[in-house]
Amino acid sequence: MTQKWVYWFKEGGEHMRPILGGKGAGLAEMTRIGLPVPPGFTISTQACIEYYKQGQKLPSGLWDEVEEHIKGLEETTGKKFGGSTNPLLVSVRSGAAISMPGMMDTILNLGLNEDSVQGLYRQTNDMRFALDCQRRFMQMFGDVVLGVDHDEFEHILAKQREEENVKYDHEISVEGLKKVIEGYRRVVKEKAGIEFPNDPMEQLRMAVEAVFKSWNNERAIVYRKINKIPDDLGTAVNVQMMVFGNMGSDSGTGVMFTRNPSTGAKELYGEYLINAQGEDVVAGIRTPKPISQMREELPETYEELKRVAAILEQHYKDMQDMEFTVEHGKLYMLQTRAGKRTAAASIEIARQMVEEGLIDKKEAVKRVKPEEIARMLHRGVDPNAKLEVAAQGLPASPGAAIGAVVFNYKKAEELGSKGEKVILVRPETKPEDMPGIVYAQGVLTSRGGMTCHAAVVARGMGKPAVVGCEALHLDIENGKAVIGKAEIKEGDVISIDGATGNVYIGEVPLVEPNIGGAFQEILQWADEVKRLGVKANADTPEDAKRAREFGATGIGLCRTEHMFMAADRLPVVREMIMAKTTEERKAALDKLLPMQENDFYEILKVMRGYTVTIRLLDPPLHEFLPSTEELAVRLSEMKHQNAPAAEIAEVEKTLKMARELHEANPMMGLRGCRLGILWPEIYEMQARAIFQATARLFKEGYTDVKPEVMIPLVGEAKELELNREMVVRVGEEVRKETGQNFPIVVGTMIEIPRAALTADEIAKHAEFFSFGTNDLTQMTFGYSRDDAEAKFLHVYLEQKILKENPFQVLDRSGVGKLVKMAVELGRSTRPDLVIGICGEHGGDPDSVEFCHIAGLDYVSCSPYRVPVARLAAAHAALKHGDK
Amino acid sequence: MTQKWVYWFKEGGEHMRPILGGKGAGLAEMTRIGLPVPPGFTISTQACIEYYKQGQKLPSGLWDEVEEHIKGLEETTGKKFGGSTNPLLVSVRSGAAISMPGMMDTILNLGLNEDSVQGLYRQTNDMRFALDCQRRFMQMFGDVVLGVDHDEFEHILAKQREEENVKYDHEISVEGLKKVIEGYRRVVKEKAGIEFPNDPMEQLRMAVEAVFKSWNNERAIVYRKINKIPDDLGTAVNVQMMVFGNMGSDSGTGVMFTRNPSTGAKELYGEYLINAQGEDVVAGIRTPKPISQMREELPETYEELKRVAAILEQHYKDMQDMEFTVEHGKLYMLQTRAGKRTAAASIEIARQMVEEGLIDKKEAVKRVKPEEIARMLHRGVDPNAKLEVAAQGLPASPGAAIGAVVFNYKKAEELGSKGEKVILVRPETKPEDMPGIVYAQGVLTSRGGMTCHAAVVARGMGKPAVVGCEALHLDIENGKAVIGKAEIKEGDVISIDGATGNVYIGEVPLVEPNIGGAFQEILQWADEVKRLGVKANADTPEDAKRAREFGATGIGLCRTEHMFMAADRLPVVREMIMAKTTEERKAALDKLLPMQENDFYEILKVMRGYTVTIRLLDPPLHEFLPSTEELAVRLSEMKHQNAPAAEIAEVEKTLKMARELHEANPMMGLRGCRLGILWPEIYEMQARAIFQATARLFKEGYTDVKPEVMIPLVGEAKELELNREMVVRVGEEVRKETGQNFPIVVGTMIEIPRAALTADEIAKHAEFFSFGTNDLTQMTFGYSRDDAEAKFLHVYLEQKILKENPFQVLDRSGVGKLVKMAVELGRSTRPDLVIGICGEHGGDPDSVEFCHIAGLDYVSCSPYRVPVARLAAAHAALKHGDK
Repeated sequence: MTQKWVYWFKEGGEHMRPILGGKGAGLAEMTRIGLPVPPGFTISTQACIEYYKQGQKLPSGLWDEVEEHIKGLEETTGKKFGGSTNPLLVSVRSGAAISMPGMMDTILNLGLNEDSVQGLYRQTNDMRFALDCQRRFMQMFGDVVLGVDHDEFEHILAKQREEENVKYDHEISVEGLKKVIEGYRRVVKEKAGIEFPNDPMEQLRMAVEAVFKSWNNERAIVYRKINKIPDDLGTAVNVQMMVFGNMGSDSGTGVMFTRNPSTGAKELYGEYLINAQGEDVVAGIRTPKPISQMREELPETYEELKRVAAILEQHYKDMQDMEFTVEHGKLYMLQTRAGKRTAAASIEIARQMVEEGLIDKKEAVKRVKPEEIARMLHRGVDPNAKLEVAAQGLPASPGAAIGAVVFNYKKAEELGSKGEKVILVRPETKPEDMPGIVYAQGVLTSRGGMTCHAAVVARGMGKPAVVGCEALHLDIENGKAVIGKAEIKEGDVISIDGATGNVYIGEVPLVEPNIGGAFQEILQWADEVKRLGVKANADTPEDAKRAREFGATGIGLCRTEHMFMAADRLPVVREMIMAKTTEERKAALDKLLPMQENDFYEILKVMRGYTVTIRLLDPPLHEFLPSTEELAVRLSEMKHQNAPAAEIAEVEKTLKMARELHEANPMMGLRGCRLGILWPEIYEMQARAIFQATARLFKEGYTDVKPEVMIPLVGEAKELELNREMVVRVGEEVRKETGQNFPIVVGTMIEIPRAALTADEIAKHAEFFSFGTNDLTQMTFGYSRDDAEAKFLHVYLEQKILKENPFQVLDRSGVGKLVKMAVELGRSTRPDLVIGICGEHGGDPDSVEFCHIAGLDYVSCSPYRVPVARLAAAHAALKHGDK
Repeated sequence: MTQKWVYWFKEGGEHMRPILGGKGAGLAEMTRIGLPVPPGFTISTQACIEYYKQGQKLPSGLWDEVEEHIKGLEETTGKKFGGSTNPLLVSVRSGAAISMPGMMDTILNLGLNEDSVQGLYRQTNDMRFALDCQRRFMQMFGDVVLGVDHDEFEHILAKQREEENVKYDHEISVEGLKKVIEGYRRVVKEKAGIEFPNDPMEQLRMAVEAVFKSWNNERAIVYRKINKIPDDLGTAVNVQMMVFGNMGSDSGTGVMFTRNPSTGAKELYGEYLINAQGEDVVAGIRTPKPISQMREELPETYEELKRVAAILEQHYKDMQDMEFTVEHGKLYMLQTRAGKRTAAASIEIARQMVEEGLIDKKEAVKRVKPEEIARMLHRGVDPNAKLEVAAQGLPASPGAAIGAVVFNYKKAEELGSKGEKVILVRPETKPEDMPGIVYAQGVLTSRGGMTCHAAVVARGMGKPAVVGCEALHLDIENGKAVIGKAEIKEGDVISIDGATGNVYIGEVPLVEPNIGGAFQEILQWADEVKRLGVKANADTPEDAKRAREFGATGIGLCRTEHMFMAADRLPVVREMIMAKTTEERKAALDKLLPMQENDFYEILKVMRGYTVTIRLLDPPLHEFLPSTEELAVRLSEMKHQNAPAAEIAEVEKTLKMARELHEANPMMGLRGCRLGILWPEIYEMQARAIFQATARLFKEGYTDVKPEVMIPLVGEAKELELNREMVVRVGEEVRKETGQNFPIVVGTMIEIPRAALTADEIAKHAEFFSFGTNDLTQMTFGYSRDDAEAKFLHVYLEQKILKENPFQVLDRSGVGKLVKMAVELGRSTRPDLVIGICGEHGGDPDSVEFCHIAGLDYVSCSPYRVPVARLAAAHAALKHGDK
């Protein structure tokens, strides 16, 4: 059996998209359902793939088939390819299975030569029209197929306009056009080194090869890389009889959406031009008219378009983006595809279509992409504004922000607290910058990756951030910076777009988020189908409140160390760390106890009815002290400046402690439950604070508060056993002291590989597991997150050693394997074990899908990701069923 | 059915050791095979366990059984317990299943009271003897059972000696003894608050309870903790008719080994005393005679002893340690057990017994403990010398060393290179101390654990080391230190024993290692049964040579970074690191190439016939630079001292680079194959050096050299694929350049959890796997080795949160699970995959056993551990069969 390379439109359909490409499949489908499509055929993507396999040669048999199909087209239309009467002209268009700009442009009017231009003249009785068609064809073909610079043709055209002293191309005389065509022939010969092909079949062959070649041009390759499209799909080629929108005032051409792609409103939306070919719309010489005007200008065609739009929407059950041409009042459809739309439109359209009965709720939920939900939650840069991008960084935390540049957190705090709008601009951020971030509209850094400190903190707070902006050069000492080519100083206004990573000089127009009716409705439908619970990571009552508003059904991770970082507490925390004896340490802890109790009181109260999973202190203690390098240099300076002995002694003491606490690899050092084992009094204070807060709430009648105590960094069952015993003991003490019979629930993080490997043992002492996939990823890969992104991960991603950043998208083959093992082992010991995830991955749709498959009970993510996770969880349930 | 608590000796046997304890089982076994054992019975360990279960009460039924057995004993012997004629006296001895010093001492002559002392007199017609027996019994009972201080009794005895003006106890008169006995009664009443019990059954009950109690005395608990003996085994109590070695010149008592426990020579070895009870031998008042003298003094008994020894050895097939008493010429056996012996004796005895046909080779291999082999390889402190230990640290690297104290590596190098013997004493060691360690006899540090830098390096070099010696206080600036109570200064001589952790002031006598005939023979037999190959970790030709001598069949890990550390190379390495461009870097690498080539040339030549697995550069580059803190302080100092601008600029440049290379967690940062991906030129140079060395050797006729290239820190198959491609390409280039057709073999370390989890993918690009269990343990536990030991691991071991230090003994439940997964996955892709281990665990017997079970092909360890690993591998094969 010989391979079939070419398909008539009437042979194909949407189901053949991989072979026919998107454009070809659309044309075939429209043909199949009886819509007016000019006849034609599609050369399959297989032919393109084969073309490359054979070292860029047309596969054998292909050309025979094409010739047959041209013959067939001649028969169908009664026209003759290259004929001097009633000539058949065709358009040649590329069309891959996945829409892909950057591939070859359309070639119109192919088939024109010295004979057929006469034929066209005879047919239309319009020499100017015929010559103009030829001129356009030669220009497109010369540029796209023969690679002659576009400007060469424009130059000849301009010269002719000048000679005739006219302003527009269509004013050029017939004689002038002839001269232009001669000029085109010359320039092709000179620049491309060949005669302009006269034979239509030769023209077609060259055009087809040019399409195939464009699959691997640089723009296409880059586009595929960015959009993660496989390199081996190939493109199809569509060859279609020309129809002409430029045959007078009863002709025209246009593009149209079946609904408003900005708002989703149910109305025809688009533009058209009378007496024009497609390229005129694009070229922008004449201003197209809104489609609504067609109702007056070409009422019959308008009605026909409305009918076609309705048929297509009914057929595709989605909003369509169509191209059409009207030739002497007859409508021809040249393309249809699902229309691109804004997030708001996507959501609105999905909602409407349910209302209209076109699709059901599940389908509506499927239609909305999680990232569309994300975009809805933040102010964005107005998509209609024409703006100049000054520089681009990583889109670390979505949303747009405008403010005056400040270079340090103190200034940010000072101005921000007065209500001024500032953007904190730093090389990178550190924990000490926190107050600045709180008061800033957004954050811009020159260093760092998607999971650097600034990114994580900003996402947690739902604050726009652009990080790793390499074109940002800071000169903080002198209060100035260069962004791209612009020099700015403190106080200058900039705008950042955390959704795209764009940085703008000055103020750009923003659009407000709209999380109204349709948004809520879609998410409600998502909740109806999802199986996974969605909780939030929140450390403050404000975060908890926001999380609840966004639909979180609990706090999956409440970190207690951020409470230690607050300005009024840090001195007490340092006192606790510097303590020489257990007694001294307990004295400091006694001061912290009421503060922590209040923290928990507020959060539990906000979240009543839902569980609040509180993680005991996790980071190494030296994080609360200055760095040894900083202290050592300070000491050296003080000595040289003969500072008072007492002050020197104080710094020496701190340096000594910082040195003692110093670790080669703090991430894997004395932190988490290891602290709880070595200094039980710290965890004991925290447990007491949690239970005292709970008892207080119980006493006040809030008996539906549900604290859970989570022990971090467990790697061995015994660690959990000991800490659990302590927590339960303290809980029972507080019960006795207060007479309140609140629940005592203890569980653990699974974030150490060994915890996953021995989850059966660990589950003996845990009522719940929560996967800390940040640390689990660090240790499973042996990547220090703080180092990896800056040092080598970007290279790994560029070189495709890793497909995704594993700190953003959960690595299924490694980390995921451990997660699955832990779920199985844990439930083998305790079938009712509650299992969730609280790493950054909890808000990533692909990772949420994995959590669904792995049988987790819930995901927990930052408040702003909660709606995204709800939708992603629904998608997972729709795709995989109720695992 | 009621529980049986008490067993006659004749009822039991060796198979009942868990119930009867070691001593009881031995007595029963001897009784069973017809040896002369005084009759008696054993109260089982179960009774002791039950005693504790019931809150320290004798279990019900026990005392009835004891009374019955005393009655039975009276019937058997015709004596009467507490009888005033022919009285039955018994000894009471504790005896756990596992030999355990620290438990209750023996009580002899129990049953004596005012009646039976008369009976004893009547029976022996010797009032002094009878009273002396009573005095001894009261003293033992008073001390051990009633808890009256030993000195109280000695005081009374001394007073009586004084009164009678005699020197020895046995010179005290009958009247004097009566006064002493009265004195004993008084002191017991006064100190213990009770009358000394007269009723023999009461005495027995109290003694039995005292034995049970002694199971949980402090000494016993500590001993069990140190020796990892479970706390719930309980002890048995042996009650046996007294026989008397102190009944005149035809009586005596002694202890004897069936072979020489120091050398293993086949000769009776032991001591005896004529006319004495057991305690006299221990007390050391009279000097016992060597057993050989008995041949003249008691020839018949000597022959009888010889006969018994032969029977017992034949029966137990092992060297025995026996206690005996001779009463009026009749020999009674009181104990037999496997004799403790030195490592040398253990090996020699095993060899001999094969020669004698007592055991087969496999049994001989089983008999020798891996640690005995280890001890044989090093000089040791003379076990016969009486020495005062100044301080104790961790026994980090076995062997004893003597030398003058030096406090820094330069001094060590300076003196050591002149042939002077020095001990390097430091708070801890760092890579820069390497030259000092090379020239020192041994290393002593005040900080660090069993796997700190000093420990690892010293073990690698087979150099004695004691680390973490807390009683060592250094004042390096003033060139002095305090060790325990002694103050020492630079140049003072000390001795260290790396096998025990002991530190001595001055020179102690050493014994040389003996790795002659028996040692080699045992290891050869071990090789015959083992399945695992044993290779060595070696980085220098010297190490490789030693490894070969110790029986290594290959180098499993040849680290290339140590070659970078050498003094003549470090400047070039820094040049390479500081390079601004790839060209600059390549220029520095070009200088390193011939040096590396020579390194590989020498090692490959030494190991010809065997594989040499060479690991490409592994550590992060900043390890080759000074620390940022050091540089920052230096810079501050230089500025204050107005140093020349050029010098300041140089330091600034280095600091900048050190900062750039600085990582929060270098262990998980830019190292291993990540370097190879980012700067391929480094690995390329190394690959070229390996292959050029190989080609040179091939050209010289050494065509049996077998280099293997090992890529470290792979976590994703693609990393290996890329590096492998590079190595193969370079190998093929060198083949072409040299015309030598050497093999190109590439494999990888499995040291990242993700590598184990995705081993099926990784095996596609690897001809071998080598488990780097050091890093794998770090990441599986989330323990930074550099931090964990100093910061929390000691607490985890003390609190038994972990049973073993996972850096010493491979953690089977976590790390082991990953190893097993990786073996299965790897072989599923490539059934002939060669799999080994090259972490520190490769020389640990328990870990070697695991490697056997997991189906690995070989283990690789430091040269000095090779014989240990060979034996351990044989043990594993004998225990588990040929997996």
